[in-house]
Amino acid sequence: MDLMEKITHLAKRRGFIFAGSDIYGGLANSWDYGPLGTELKKNIKDEWWRRFVRERIDMVGIDAALVMSPKVWEASGHVKQFSDPLVECKKCHMRFRADQIEKDACASCGGELGAEKQFNLLFKTFLGATEDAQSQAYLRGELAQAMFVDFPAVLQAVRRRLPFGIASQGRVFRNEITPGNFIFRTREFDLMEFEYFVREAEWQKHFEYWLEEMHAWLAHCGVKKEHYYVHEIEDGERAHYSKRTIDIEYDYPFGRKELYGLAYRTDFDLKNHMESSGRDMRYTDPETGDKFLPHVIEPTFGLDRTVLVAMLEAYHEEDAPTAEEGEKEPRIVMKFPSWMAPYKVAILPLSKKEELAKIAEPLYADLRKSYMCDYDETQSIGKRYRRQDEIGTPFCITVDFETAKDNAVTVRDRDTMAQERIKIADVREYIAKKLTVK
Amino acid sequence: MDLMEKITHLAKRRGFIFAGSDIYGGLANSWDYGPLGTELKKNIKDEWWRRFVRERIDMVGIDAALVMSPKVWEASGHVKQFSDPLVECKKCHMRFRADQIEKDACASCGGELGAEKQFNLLFKTFLGATEDAQSQAYLRGELAQAMFVDFPAVLQAVRRRLPFGIASQGRVFRNEITPGNFIFRTREFDLMEFEYFVREAEWQKHFEYWLEEMHAWLAHCGVKKEHYYVHEIEDGERAHYSKRTIDIEYDYPFGRKELYGLAYRTDFDLKNHMESSGRDMRYTDPETGDKFLPHVIEPTFGLDRTVLVAMLEAYHEEDAPTAEEGEKEPRIVMKFPSWMAPYKVAILPLSKKEELAKIAEPLYADLRKSYMCDYDETQSIGKRYRRQDEIGTPFCITVDFETAKDNAVTVRDRDTMAQERIKIADVREYIAKKLTVK
Repeated sequence: MDLMEKITHLAKRRGFIFAGSDIYGGLANSWDYGPLGTELKKNIKDEWWRRFVRERIDMVGIDAALVMSPKVWEASGHVKQFSDPLVECKKCHMRFRADQIEKDACASCGGELGAEKQFNLLFKTFLGATEDAQSQAYLRGELAQAMFVDFPAVLQAVRRRLPFGIASQGRVFRNEITPGNFIFRTREFDLMEFEYFVREAEWQKHFEYWLEEMHAWLAHCGVKKEHYYVHEIEDGERAHYSKRTIDIEYDYPFGRKELYGLAYRTDFDLKNHMESSGRDMRYTDPETGDKFLPHVIEPTFGLDRTVLVAMLEAYHEEDAPTAEEGEKEPRIVMKFPSWMAPYKVAILPLSKKEELAKIAEPLYADLRKSYMCDYDETQSIGKRYRRQDEIGTPFCITVDFETAKDNAVTVRDRDTMAQERIKIADVREYIAKKLTVK
Repeated sequence: MDLMEKITHLAKRRGFIFAGSDIYGGLANSWDYGPLGTELKKNIKDEWWRRFVRERIDMVGIDAALVMSPKVWEASGHVKQFSDPLVECKKCHMRFRADQIEKDACASCGGELGAEKQFNLLFKTFLGATEDAQSQAYLRGELAQAMFVDFPAVLQAVRRRLPFGIASQGRVFRNEITPGNFIFRTREFDLMEFEYFVREAEWQKHFEYWLEEMHAWLAHCGVKKEHYYVHEIEDGERAHYSKRTIDIEYDYPFGRKELYGLAYRTDFDLKNHMESSGRDMRYTDPETGDKFLPHVIEPTFGLDRTVLVAMLEAYHEEDAPTAEEGEKEPRIVMKFPSWMAPYKVAILPLSKKEELAKIAEPLYADLRKSYMCDYDETQSIGKRYRRQDEIGTPFCITVDFETAKDNAVTVRDRDTMAQERIKIADVREYIAKKLTVK
């Protein structure tokens, strides 16, 4: 089994991620986050928000409607230019990505393929009671446009000075013809992104700054530097709006492909929206009174790809000692950074006996107020440690038959497997301290 | 101005919520959350998740794709029955809700109205390269179906015993013909919901339990008991799947209307999905080995409506003392529960002077690591207090010219306007303590 298969199986088995609409045979490349995946994803999403929005004085967030006025997508260029080249089979009408077909005949029925045509990636829908061109609208194909369209309203409400950013997180939709590789490419996915507004003369400085911040974020997520690469996108290859773009590419088991992006979008979007809407989108310099359109640096973080990469990085197979002295057996351990792990602590009473439960349960109730905790009293302690290793729980607390005598429990570290005897009264502080060291 | 206008104006002015796609003249009843509204909404969403998922041992979360297999919506009855009755004008083809028209002629052009027809509320879109019946899919019209469809996968991954729940939060879409009243009814909105799986014999007990929990949540959100009502939905009025439904209705300025819902959905959904998919959806009793379909209690919380009600409840106009001894002037104050307030603390140096900034800035930097904080050094201190009152900041910390001498600051309470002199070294603990008392 290659690493992707291992991750996909573990994700399904332990409730991280499973196929969407599975009981109906699935829906091509749609995935649902299960109990553990939902926590993992939420931890990443919240940590990003804390780090890039709440802790910073130069960033504010917005949370916009997914369906915007179709005029937004006309002005942004998406209606015209957000497309993939496709060819259609003249016989069965199946369509394929023109840049990905290997032969002249239809891979489905062997029929003759037609000429290459552009296929727009925006999902269409209809608002209101009729289904015609007038009521047609699009599901957003990126987060960015809302941050441009709302720029004047945000500016008026919060009166920030340049440089400052507007951040957003949420679902976007792209009608990809060839999605695939688990959660790497899907038709709907979550992005985390900000538009950072700067003076044109300073764009290079801010571009470099945000590239460094992206490195720091990846390190914070436990992604090793030797696993990803900064790829400068050349002239002619960049999106229509960008003067400089960097892709952060990761070495997935299926090849080196995009993880994050960093683009200098110039004042392209604000200018287009100003022209198309007739509304003044300019920033007024509070000192000089000058009015001008800020330029934009845009770091984009795929949330689902972050989850995928976090799982790939965390996955380890190791030899671990068994209960038998000197014996070893393999263990699978997900070495998530502790802030990211779905459960922080598992409480494991050595047996189901009442005398252990009456100590373990109150401890569980107390710790659960602060941390996601698991409680497991089934099977052998060795098997339970393996289960917690496999879902990346940083600490296991074992309540045993000594506990009633010494008022202490055993705390086991996921990565080192070292065990420490800690007084019950000190457990909360011990865990808190371990979890703050990120 | 009535209260709704006041709230809408304040929401726009202070960046809580503003009209979506505004620069393009807006998109009917679409709203974007601005910087403060995003924080308010996120605080409510996260607190709900903490309280109902993370703190509970009988609840797990999922985060599903918005687009599911169309078979899901056929099995659930939505394709056939999720509709509003409409009439169409024979002349201009405008459509109206049949149960909301007041006269026989078209309200737009005066033309003759046709016969009543059912109009489905599911938003349609197309997956893949062709736009035909085969590729047609729907945006989810409720969260619930994913929790039913994923029930077997969740059960297998987490092995919970009855009773237990699956929770979810996220965007749903309903193609309403007459949305309106600010964020009360919009075409896309966020829900927070769980399906609580129980034994059929125990449904009444759990129904009552969750009704009490909904009361407790509303109290936690600062909603006064005299402002909302429990409305029992009678036979014939309930949704097609429900044997008992309660609406929690709130007295909005525009009338008494739905806020939350609590429904006993029986085993309707699991049974339908089992029949339609051919997959075994049953739960196996771990003691007896009996296999059966659990019954379902479903509490539904509208997130946007919670935001709206929280704003309505928080809004107060009061007489407040001015800087002049004995003088009073009106103040607008948003008395959000402190856990919900966008900013927890505002740091207000009395003037822009360097000697104050050098104390205020490190304090800001320190507190910001734990709480969303604002920093404001513009205009008079009285005006700044008013600004913070208007956005509901529980505590203002004033750094003044005494601070350098006594190493203390003034902490002002939003609701009582009482001021206390606190040593800088004690500020962090003082705030932490005040904020834990919810």
